Amino acid sequence: MAQKTFAQLVAEQEKLLKTGNRIDKRFYNGLYDRFANPVLTREHVPVSWRWDADPKTNPHMIERLGIGTAFNAGAMEFEGRIIVMARTDGHDRKSFFAVAESKTGIDGFRFWDEPVVMPETEDPDTNVYDMRLTRHEDGWIYGLFCSERRDPKAAPHDLSSAVAACGIARSKDLKTWERLPDLKTGGSQQRNVVLHPEFVNGTYLLYTRPTDGFIDAGTQSGIAYALVDRMERAVIGHETVFEERIYHTIKEVKNGQGAPPIRTKHGWLHVAHGVRNCAAGLRYVLYAFLTDLAEPWKVIAAPGGHLIAPLKEERVGDVSNVVFSNGMVAKQDGELLIYYASSDTRLHVARTDVERMVDYCKNTPPDARRSYACVQQRLELIRRNQAFLAKKRKAGR
Amino acid sequence: MAQKTFAQLVAEQEKLLKTGNRIDKRFYNGLYDRFANPVLTREHVPVSWRWDADPKTNPHMIERLGIGTAFNAGAMEFEGRIIVMARTDGHDRKSFFAVAESKTGIDGFRFWDEPVVMPETEDPDTNVYDMRLTRHEDGWIYGLFCSERRDPKAAPHDLSSAVAACGIARSKDLKTWERLPDLKTGGSQQRNVVLHPEFVNGTYLLYTRPTDGFIDAGTQSGIAYALVDRMERAVIGHETVFEERIYHTIKEVKNGQGAPPIRTKHGWLHVAHGVRNCAAGLRYVLYAFLTDLAEPWKVIAAPGGHLIAPLKEERVGDVSNVVFSNGMVAKQDGELLIYYASSDTRLHVARTDVERMVDYCKNTPPDARRSYACVQQRLELIRRNQAFLAKKRKAGR
Repeated sequence: MAQKTFAQLVAEQEKLLKTGNRIDKRFYNGLYDRFANPVLTREHVPVSWRWDADPKTNPHMIERLGIGTAFNAGAMEFEGRIIVMARTDGHDRKSFFAVAESKTGIDGFRFWDEPVVMPETEDPDTNVYDMRLTRHEDGWIYGLFCSERRDPKAAPHDLSSAVAACGIARSKDLKTWERLPDLKTGGSQQRNVVLHPEFVNGTYLLYTRPTDGFIDAGTQSGIAYALVDRMERAVIGHETVFEERIYHTIKEVKNGQGAPPIRTKHGWLHVAHGVRNCAAGLRYVLYAFLTDLAEPWKVIAAPGGHLIAPLKEERVGDVSNVVFSNGMVAKQDGELLIYYASSDTRLHVARTDVERMVDYCKNTPPDARRSYACVQQRLELIRRNQAFLAKKRKAGR
Repeated sequence: MAQKTFAQLVAEQEKLLKTGNRIDKRFYNGLYDRFANPVLTREHVPVSWRWDADPKTNPHMIERLGIGTAFNAGAMEFEGRIIVMARTDGHDRKSFFAVAESKTGIDGFRFWDEPVVMPETEDPDTNVYDMRLTRHEDGWIYGLFCSERRDPKAAPHDLSSAVAACGIARSKDLKTWERLPDLKTGGSQQRNVVLHPEFVNGTYLLYTRPTDGFIDAGTQSGIAYALVDRMERAVIGHETVFEERIYHTIKEVKNGQGAPPIRTKHGWLHVAHGVRNCAAGLRYVLYAFLTDLAEPWKVIAAPGGHLIAPLKEERVGDVSNVVFSNGMVAKQDGELLIYYASSDTRLHVARTDVERMVDYCKNTPPDARRSYACVQQRLELIRRNQAFLAKKRKAGR
């Protein structure tokens, strides 16, 4: 084969990293822009993390440690840049965390020199993934993530079942991480725990997604919250579900909090994932809702349906039919960047602003739960439009 | 509709068959080349196998016997050409075997005049598929394939469950096949049995993938081997697993041998499939390993992670998220052609050479089994690169 040198590989990657981004004009909904290019792919992962540069030990210049994906990323503003804390999977399917930064938040993302070394607890994780970053008012940046270990109750021949717990770590610089004990819960498994950025009555507030088993929600039902006194040796007793799974909706099988919610004048803005079943497996979409500023577990606006569903190239990947978000950034000027991954493979950004999202949450009719009622909802819109447009035509004459 | 004549259809296909192939530059890993076009698709299946050419009996020139796929193919050198023994599915989803040949092995594949007539045993197969071709040192070319019959224990309303056995046939010319009795095993089902090309201590060596049920591996665990005295009325007693399924790896759910292994100076080179579960169903990838020359069931090098995973157009097909291989050819000059099918639909080739593959097997770190350990593995590479590149820069000054 025509062999490339390490320098060539680096030069080719440099070109990719300098490729800008532009709005994808094939999509328009007046709410957010999609972009033509993902912001992060496996091709963005540094060449020196994958190839051995030394021709003596790598005479054929073969990729030594492949990377398959760069996706589900926490996100935040950090020292004047937008950073994402990506989940990257080696060809061995183990995930690890790595920070990439950008000036714009929509292009030019570049990984830092080394991946994150996340310390283990005394009970080593098999896998860690999907970090939510929270800059908490206590002064720490927290990373909450899913920590998987093999299910000790699994039958010997069952080589898939895991127990999922919430791993907790904190940092000041996103480089050195203090691993705290995993969240203790009353027996439920946890894969989507998110720390609220502010104290609520002096306590920490966690959003949880309790599940009975590793994959199935089982008898559990939706996004819950729990209050904890401290993040060191955090223990939650009761989890109260406040955002339920609902029959025949986009969140009938599972739902879970995405990134930490964003404070707006009108309430906390949440973006969550909802899951339904279909003949091709599970389908993951994103949806939004608003909660009360003082009591962030009180839903005050729940627009029906999804906010973002997989579209075009997003539909297919290592795990198809999935969009997932665990990071968003609200800039000072109100611009809102929602980082979402498609099909467990690559990371995209949807750009909107906080005001639009609040309008969307407040003025999108809620799910009417039945086809007939949904048609009535639509007829109301259509007839209102007919009347409005007729009036406008008349005024124009 | 605009009706085409039979002659037009043939002329159009002729154009396709004369289309060359070229390296797909969207992919590079220094180990193997992917190609822009599949080597075999349903469009390659002769027009006269699908259309009735006679306008009297086919006045609308309708396709009479559709073909959906041309995929999972055995492969070998035969009379100075590369031939593949493809699995082709009619629109009725029955599979059958058909030989296509090419001068280059990367393009120009053309089916022989007629498909293979594989004789039945006294207990007729419902379906046959995925033939492994072995030119054995006993002088025969063997074809081992999966033979499916309805599960006699299935409930009357269960119209899916089958029993999978290993069908065995042999030939000298790939046209006339002598069907031998199916492999007798101690109760396990078999879908991926492969005959080793050489005698081992005077006996035949079979690679097997025992499974409890039709689809599930159940309590079974990996690729096994068994020795048999003869291929006529072959019976295996004990199957010894030597390449195990492993928790949280690319082969946690199932794994099985691909083509017969290739003899190299450094050991037998195997390409196998590994399966994991995900929210979208099963995901099949290919991986490689080396075994001892004298005792081909002793793994001597096991690089971590996958060798080939579905990418771009390969990701989607009749059964998405699958790459599978049951044929490879090592040419005299060391070139290695790995035939792999994508998503149970079409056949591709990955071109590499034996030396590179041996380097890959020996020098790719093994799966470190835990996220933290995998990060350490990667950091070791990164820091070695940093030191090497710094030294090089210094020397360059």
